[in-house]
Amino acid sequence: MPLQKKVELLSLGDELLAGIRVNTHLTYLGEMLARNGLDLLRNQELPDDLEAIRSGFLGAWERADLVITTGGLGPTSDDLTMDALALALGRGMRMDAAVEEAIRERFARRGWSTPENNLRQCRILEGATVLPNPEGTAPGQWLEADGRILVVLPGPTHEMQPMFENEVLSRLREKGWATGARLCTQLRTSGAGESQIAQDLAPILAPFDRKVRVAYCAHNGLVDVRLTATGDETTEDDMKSLAHACCERLGDSFAGYGDCPMAAIILRQLRNLNRTLSVAESCTGGLLAARFTDVAGASKVFVGGLVCYRNDIKENLLGVPGCILEQHGAVSAECAVAMATASAEVFETDYALSITGYAGPEGGREPAGTVYVGLHSPVGVWSQKVFHAGSRGAVRERAVNVALDFLRRKLRQYEVHDFLDSCCQG
Amino acid sequence: MPLQKKVELLSLGDELLAGIRVNTHLTYLGEMLARNGLDLLRNQELPDDLEAIRSGFLGAWERADLVITTGGLGPTSDDLTMDALALALGRGMRMDAAVEEAIRERFARRGWSTPENNLRQCRILEGATVLPNPEGTAPGQWLEADGRILVVLPGPTHEMQPMFENEVLSRLREKGWATGARLCTQLRTSGAGESQIAQDLAPILAPFDRKVRVAYCAHNGLVDVRLTATGDETTEDDMKSLAHACCERLGDSFAGYGDCPMAAIILRQLRNLNRTLSVAESCTGGLLAARFTDVAGASKVFVGGLVCYRNDIKENLLGVPGCILEQHGAVSAECAVAMATASAEVFETDYALSITGYAGPEGGREPAGTVYVGLHSPVGVWSQKVFHAGSRGAVRERAVNVALDFLRRKLRQYEVHDFLDSCCQG
Repeated sequence: MPLQKKVELLSLGDELLAGIRVNTHLTYLGEMLARNGLDLLRNQELPDDLEAIRSGFLGAWERADLVITTGGLGPTSDDLTMDALALALGRGMRMDAAVEEAIRERFARRGWSTPENNLRQCRILEGATVLPNPEGTAPGQWLEADGRILVVLPGPTHEMQPMFENEVLSRLREKGWATGARLCTQLRTSGAGESQIAQDLAPILAPFDRKVRVAYCAHNGLVDVRLTATGDETTEDDMKSLAHACCERLGDSFAGYGDCPMAAIILRQLRNLNRTLSVAESCTGGLLAARFTDVAGASKVFVGGLVCYRNDIKENLLGVPGCILEQHGAVSAECAVAMATASAEVFETDYALSITGYAGPEGGREPAGTVYVGLHSPVGVWSQKVFHAGSRGAVRERAVNVALDFLRRKLRQYEVHDFLDSCCQG
Repeated sequence: MPLQKKVELLSLGDELLAGIRVNTHLTYLGEMLARNGLDLLRNQELPDDLEAIRSGFLGAWERADLVITTGGLGPTSDDLTMDALALALGRGMRMDAAVEEAIRERFARRGWSTPENNLRQCRILEGATVLPNPEGTAPGQWLEADGRILVVLPGPTHEMQPMFENEVLSRLREKGWATGARLCTQLRTSGAGESQIAQDLAPILAPFDRKVRVAYCAHNGLVDVRLTATGDETTEDDMKSLAHACCERLGDSFAGYGDCPMAAIILRQLRNLNRTLSVAESCTGGLLAARFTDVAGASKVFVGGLVCYRNDIKENLLGVPGCILEQHGAVSAECAVAMATASAEVFETDYALSITGYAGPEGGREPAGTVYVGLHSPVGVWSQKVFHAGSRGAVRERAVNVALDFLRRKLRQYEVHDFLDSCCQG
């Protein structure tokens, strides 16, 4: 087995150092590299400054086999990546005619002439290969020199990620630097805290102490458990049976393998049952619907949603009975159930999910952060109260996650029943 | 005025490099430092490795006046920050009795005995001052040596942030290193590209070449222009008149000052006009509504939204005339206008915004990425076609941004007319 290659990353841009933008490129590339058998050994965030980039790059170039840069390829005067790299490597740059044509075409397609500035983006390091950028004007670059590889990537996420996956990974695999993925499994859990999950899994994971690395990653109400084999000792069968044992121990908290979004898991379940879904939401104002419609092919299951943001819409458009609003208020378990049922009726769906609450900063009958989730299904209706102290955004995010988990668990619980039911109807 | 101090940060932890955790410490500290007149010149994410931390620290210590580290102070064997710093500085460590007592007390309060491991956290660099940690066991450290300052902070956010604010900032102010905030203005633009904006502003900014630093930050269809005075030469009046000149030059592309989201700008405009708004969307499936409802107090203007995800909902629930769907299709300029008008009728609002299109991966009559935005207003209806080649998520995001910019520009264009109109009605 060849020695593992050393990888360093340079993340370029004042905005990363001034607290204006979070460095999500680091997270993305760190994970992609790890999945492909390469460990990222260092990242540096550097300002838009020629000398800082030059010296930061030279340090990385001395230590690493592969250096990747992101950002600073834009058309403006603070985009200095190419100048700094050319200086550091003592290399000239050539104007690439094909890149220029692609840029001019891109502007022409919109009926615009090409700004002179953008021609800076045609500058390619002598000896480097152009990595095409179908999503933007700045191409990437791949340079092999001094037994090392330099990869230059653009800053915008929707340009950088496809370029890394389509152009860079394949080249790294061809050279044998990126190996097949290390044995790795991710279990996605929902509705339980990180320390609870860790405690539950501890006895199962203990025997694998040195052979399998465990990482817990909590985000958006989910906790991902990532298991990675550290060496050749652990076989694929070992990993499979370990993952299986973990799933069993997790029970209902286990939502699925890998990175599958909760909404996609639910839509797949409903599609298998040949059922449809709609939503009615107030305080989350479209976020719940957006999660479902983010999944390609959702329209086979997800029919639509109503955002009843002003209170009277709940009664006038959705058809929640006025007496429920009067007696229990618009933020109540009763209203959540009535909203779900009304949504199922209006959209003519089998299932309907609802959210009503106080996102804040102000509350009402109850404090800000109080949210009720409602569910209408062919086998019954439910409502659940949720309280989360936090910012408006955090309350909304949490409410959507709780609603998704609520439906996921109910479907799991009733899917056999429901499946039999749907068979009978057929 | 004293020379500005150079600051570097070291963010320690494998999880930052393996894509498991986003480095929010960098964002927080970068912003806090900038607000207090200190620029962060470099950050390095380093793994839990003695040699990597030692060499990364020495580089920073050579370049900077102030070096801050976060993380790696925990009780386990992969917490190597103190060992690496002691090694790099050639300094011993002492066991601090007061820290030990605080740790033992912390455990005793919960009725636990103190694990032997945790006594590693009593190790303080010779000559360093202890920064107390009321939120956890690991204290911070403040060391003045070689005319420089080293600040060691714990990793957990709820321990690090109060320690920085309560212990570190005050000491930096006492020494005169942290000053009041620097002069800084941010102009938010929408609907024009980064290079266009830069080209437009170039003649206005040129005379300020060395006195004002300009940074362009493109995100989500917006381009922010940040102007920062680099020294004392530029007065507040200079900055104001410069910002004003930029706004004039930008014309309709100028959306507002600071960080205000586009939806908030629109809601404020509508609120001033005493007008209401609703939305109807298909391919963006709730994202447009979610942007408006993300703004606190939105319900004074934003009434509600309909997500018509399955096609028949457009006709049956929203009331788009069947003949329009038949003749022009659900993804058409005509349908977008009809959706906006129907939304205004159903929700009884003055304005209504609509989006219909093919988010992908599959298209229909037109390719995936084709989207129509529609607007209904008291003074007319409009529709605009948008095409964006990209992922499903990118197409949806772009469509929402174009819709928001469309409404913002129309409001700007018609606000005088509309204002007179609303006066007449009153």
